Amino acid sequence: MDAVTRNPTACILVIGNEVLSGRTQDANIRYLAQRLGELGIPVREVRIIPDVADVIIRTINEVRAAFDHVFTTGGIGPTHDDITSECVAAAFGVPWEKQPVVWARMEAHYPPGQFNTARQRMATMPRGAVLIDNGRTIAPGFSMANVHVMAGVPAIMRLMFDMLAPRLAGGAPIVSRSVHAETIREGDIAAGLTEIQARYPALDLGSYPYYRDTTAGVAIVAKGTDDAAADAAIAEVTELFKSLGGRPVAGEPA
Amino acid sequence: MDAVTRNPTACILVIGNEVLSGRTQDANIRYLAQRLGELGIPVREVRIIPDVADVIIRTINEVRAAFDHVFTTGGIGPTHDDITSECVAAAFGVPWEKQPVVWARMEAHYPPGQFNTARQRMATMPRGAVLIDNGRTIAPGFSMANVHVMAGVPAIMRLMFDMLAPRLAGGAPIVSRSVHAETIREGDIAAGLTEIQARYPALDLGSYPYYRDTTAGVAIVAKGTDDAAADAAIAEVTELFKSLGGRPVAGEPA
Repeated sequence: MDAVTRNPTACILVIGNEVLSGRTQDANIRYLAQRLGELGIPVREVRIIPDVADVIIRTINEVRAAFDHVFTTGGIGPTHDDITSECVAAAFGVPWEKQPVVWARMEAHYPPGQFNTARQRMATMPRGAVLIDNGRTIAPGFSMANVHVMAGVPAIMRLMFDMLAPRLAGGAPIVSRSVHAETIREGDIAAGLTEIQARYPALDLGSYPYYRDTTAGVAIVAKGTDDAAADAAIAEVTELFKSLGGRPVAGEPA
Repeated sequence: MDAVTRNPTACILVIGNEVLSGRTQDANIRYLAQRLGELGIPVREVRIIPDVADVIIRTINEVRAAFDHVFTTGGIGPTHDDITSECVAAAFGVPWEKQPVVWARMEAHYPPGQFNTARQRMATMPRGAVLIDNGRTIAPGFSMANVHVMAGVPAIMRLMFDMLAPRLAGGAPIVSRSVHAETIREGDIAAGLTEIQARYPALDLGSYPYYRDTTAGVAIVAKGTDDAAADAAIAEVTELFKSLGGRPVAGEPA
């Protein structure tokens, strides 16, 4: 639980050599972070780890103890590098066994002979797994306690998250307010910003310089569960910008 | 060091609330992973962590012991949420102090009165830091032993990495070979692929389904330091595709 907001916390675990090698641009982290923020379950850490059993098992056990929810993406297909499911079973110390509902469903789905050993792995799950269907492919993800195991393919992951979201006990939604100004530089507002942050300890006040073709400036973003505080902090930042000759514009730069 | 290839290993540490909240799409991980792969320093883990001092300090100490190189991005600007530099000093147990070269350079650069307390923070570094210049902005990153501290803004980070790269002792470059075929499904090739992977234990053989508007298929990627082995493994996968009626095409799908 977050010490300030009392919200539950999340960790995202991206499992896959393809992201670590740079072959694939991850497309799940930002999506999940935004959705979880709306649910009041802020993401506090992300790890990207390889398809290596002892690394997966050790990491799952570390982060499921440290965060209220863990969301994994990747490694639940039928091939030799898809080992997330059995690693979750090992992490929880439970058998990895035929999941009768999924097994029956997949057996009925495939033509005779095609529900082979590889596909049977996708119907094999940790004992106690709660299914996360996706409405598009036959094989589901699953939750084991606070560990939610989803596909790595973004379109499938998003469908699974839609199924999972209503089951998650969230906290107060994280709201965001922002203001930006061109010509202002971070080094000029830093002292004033530090004072404003000190007056709003329950908010995260972020300072983000930006560069466009012909202009540059800085955007200030206030995030937290108290929207009145976020409004007030951004009003103070707006005055700070003006006091330095800036022309602040609400929101983030286009 | 990697147990199989004897290559040095890398961990990327992305420091910043803006990536964790989903405000910002990270644009550094994939770039660094590709560049480091070319240098023969494969990335074995990525962590994205918040601008929280004790988390940063603890994480730096954990990963600098576990990997040969650690590359951090973010948190070296002048504002209150830029705390990477002092956290690196704390992690190494050394003073965080005026860096005379950077201090003199920045003092000469700014008009009188503008080298203020906030900007002076960017000229304050862990004792022993080795500078990483970028040729575009006045403030550098730095290396402390095997921890390389870079900016979060992608354009600046890339310039810093260009300066840093020649100093890194790499290993054999990681090469990549691939083949893909439409109409083939992962579940049909999984068993054959497992056998091929077993014959090439020094390679990572990855299986990646893809979906296009009107077609779908699977791409197999072999990565490792032995290009002859990668060629041979992909030749075997090509035959496997053919044996299942597929029409394999070298490389990855467009």
